[in-house]
Amino acid sequence: MRNFDINEDPHRRYNPLLDEWVLVSPHRAKRPWQGQKESVATEKRPEYDPECYLCPGNVRANGEQNPDYENCYVFENDFAAMKQEEIEFKADSNTTFFRAQPERGISRVVCFSPRHDLTLPEMEEKDIENIIRTWQKEYTTLGANDFINHVQIFENKGSVMGCSNPHPHGQIWAQSSLPTQVAKTQLSLKQYYTKTQSSLLGDYLQEELVKKERIVLENDYFVVLVPFWAIWPYETLVISKRHFGKITDMTDEEISAYAAILKKLTIKYDNLFSTSFPYSSGIHQAPTDGQLHPEWHFHMHFYPPLLRSATVKKFMVGYELLGESQRDITAEKSAEILRNLSEVHYKSEL
Amino acid sequence: MRNFDINEDPHRRYNPLLDEWVLVSPHRAKRPWQGQKESVATEKRPEYDPECYLCPGNVRANGEQNPDYENCYVFENDFAAMKQEEIEFKADSNTTFFRAQPERGISRVVCFSPRHDLTLPEMEEKDIENIIRTWQKEYTTLGANDFINHVQIFENKGSVMGCSNPHPHGQIWAQSSLPTQVAKTQLSLKQYYTKTQSSLLGDYLQEELVKKERIVLENDYFVVLVPFWAIWPYETLVISKRHFGKITDMTDEEISAYAAILKKLTIKYDNLFSTSFPYSSGIHQAPTDGQLHPEWHFHMHFYPPLLRSATVKKFMVGYELLGESQRDITAEKSAEILRNLSEVHYKSEL
Ligand SMILES: O=P(O)(O)O[C@H]1O[C@H](CO)[C@@H](O)[C@H](O)[C@H]1O
Ligand SMILES: O=P(O)(O)O[C@H]1O[C@H](CO)[C@@H](O)[C@H](O)[C@H]1O
Repeated sequence: MRNFDINEDPHRRYNPLLDEWVLVSPHRAKRPWQGQKESVATEKRPEYDPECYLCPGNVRANGEQNPDYENCYVFENDFAAMKQEEIEFKADSNTTFFRAQPERGISRVVCFSPRHDLTLPEMEEKDIENIIRTWQKEYTTLGANDFINHVQIFENKGSVMGCSNPHPHGQIWAQSSLPTQVAKTQLSLKQYYTKTQSSLLGDYLQEELVKKERIVLENDYFVVLVPFWAIWPYETLVISKRHFGKITDMTDEEISAYAAILKKLTIKYDNLFSTSFPYSSGIHQAPTDGQLHPEWHFHMHFYPPLLRSATVKKFMVGYELLGESQRDITAEKSAEILRNLSEVHYKSEL
Repeated sequence: MRNFDINEDPHRRYNPLLDEWVLVSPHRAKRPWQGQKESVATEKRPEYDPECYLCPGNVRANGEQNPDYENCYVFENDFAAMKQEEIEFKADSNTTFFRAQPERGISRVVCFSPRHDLTLPEMEEKDIENIIRTWQKEYTTLGANDFINHVQIFENKGSVMGCSNPHPHGQIWAQSSLPTQVAKTQLSLKQYYTKTQSSLLGDYLQEELVKKERIVLENDYFVVLVPFWAIWPYETLVISKRHFGKITDMTDEEISAYAAILKKLTIKYDNLFSTSFPYSSGIHQAPTDGQLHPEWHFHMHFYPPLLRSATVKKFMVGYELLGESQRDITAEKSAEILRNLSEVHYKSEL
């Protein structure tokens, strides 16, 4: 019998953050693709677009006018998924199958820059630092509300990720409950911390820094790697070297290092298929429930959908929805490809 | 304070099959959509396409020729995600973060009809019965292999679901391990069964048949409903009225009733936006691990991505990937819309 070769043979890998498995089919990257292709936006965008509801000075759907902002600009989402209003509610404790509870929350939009034509990889490091400081402020002020126990900071980039406006921006959904994925992650971190008095992600990072094969970027304070259990083709995880739980714990040096590594990572992403690379990204950190959370270790996920080119994405459909996440290229191979890409943006080389 | 109104106020609902929550934002259906639109395939397909690798008599990528089949035709997937080969493997029991294990499996493609131009809603009931009998046969023969413990039957329909060939077909991925979603479902079914000696889905169905508001279709043996905890806008669940665990337990009457309700459901789906409605569907049933599984209750999930029209889908992105599944229209509203749709296909009325 042949010996198992993780680079060639179908296998499953375990995700210790979510306590789930992923199916890996390395040999399958060879299959031809005749299916749907995404369209690529190639037109050069203007610095200011009079039609854009995120550009400075423009009027939004609800009639409000954006200020002439110069760095970041934050406003309440005009079509928020949650509301702040407190609602009278009597839980039906008698039901097994019809459990529902009202959910309070605040949704905000964070414009990353007044410039309509920029994206993270094209911004200056100091402008990305500004975004990080804005996230810090939002985490603090939103989390200070009694009814806000979790602050989800995220970005949907690219129309393929449901983003309807190319103006650089992210979102924040803050709410009373811990969302499902965060609750799962917290459970894993906590079980590990209780057993070892140590950070799961910190210990994982130590082993990855020795093995090196999944590392994409590293500086004094942060590491970007393709996690062993990644599901998206070019999924990455940004982990702080120091064990802290939330974005407001960062020192000035860490803020600079975080900005620098985000810029480098998103440049590599754009360079991968010479396109403005779509993804959903978001920060996982300690909840704002007033408890100490020594188990939490600040990290950021990047979930990009593209697989083979600027137009061919990975479809998470039938088997994936009903059975299990599945990937065609190994985490090691993806990391190697990302690691070897230039840190100079392809557009600046044109 | 206002009283909680489940039809208007943001809330979370609990999914007892997966032990997860979903965020429901009923008021959000009103927001305008300026984002990506899907393209709609409108061209009339020929009954036979000489370029299609699934049509009878045609040659596939690997050089094999399809027979002149008359009903269903099953073959091994030329680009299978798993392989049958047994691999020598020594587990590294010393690792917390790098857990992997080889996975053996068999992937098959099931052509539903020799006719290139048909889809389930346009097929005769007796032809759908044929597909069900084919699924039965595959479940039995694949499951008879010692190394196959689970048989996942599913269909990806439409290019938006990653389906690269419109010829009506589904897939079967059979494998050694229980996939993540199935393992979660089995755990919930089992815990409930151990406690009550009764079927979770059977008991749920009884309550739904009394409440009626989420029922889409019903006949003597099957019910289609929008589950209370649905995440996709028009997600449905097909549940057998009788408590049995696997497709091979069906009587002839049940096979007919299953075929009839699948036809009606997919006709309603097509009628919803007057389009060939995309979805991923799949059967959840007892594993083929040789154990008795009294907890299992045969059911089929339909996960369709469309939200507002033939071209606007729901994006499961940023918040959904990092936080929690989120929907903009309540399950009750979706069920009402589906229930009120005609059972005559819109094309036959043209
Ligand atoms: O096997 P197919 O139809 O080529 O591929 C399709 O279904 C598979 C199973 O859900 C997915 O893994 C692929 O991403 C999708 O494109
Ligand atoms: O809020 P937006 O950008 O309009 O909407 C986008 O992001 C949301 C949060 O991930 C999703 O719920 C929507 O499906 C998506 O289109």
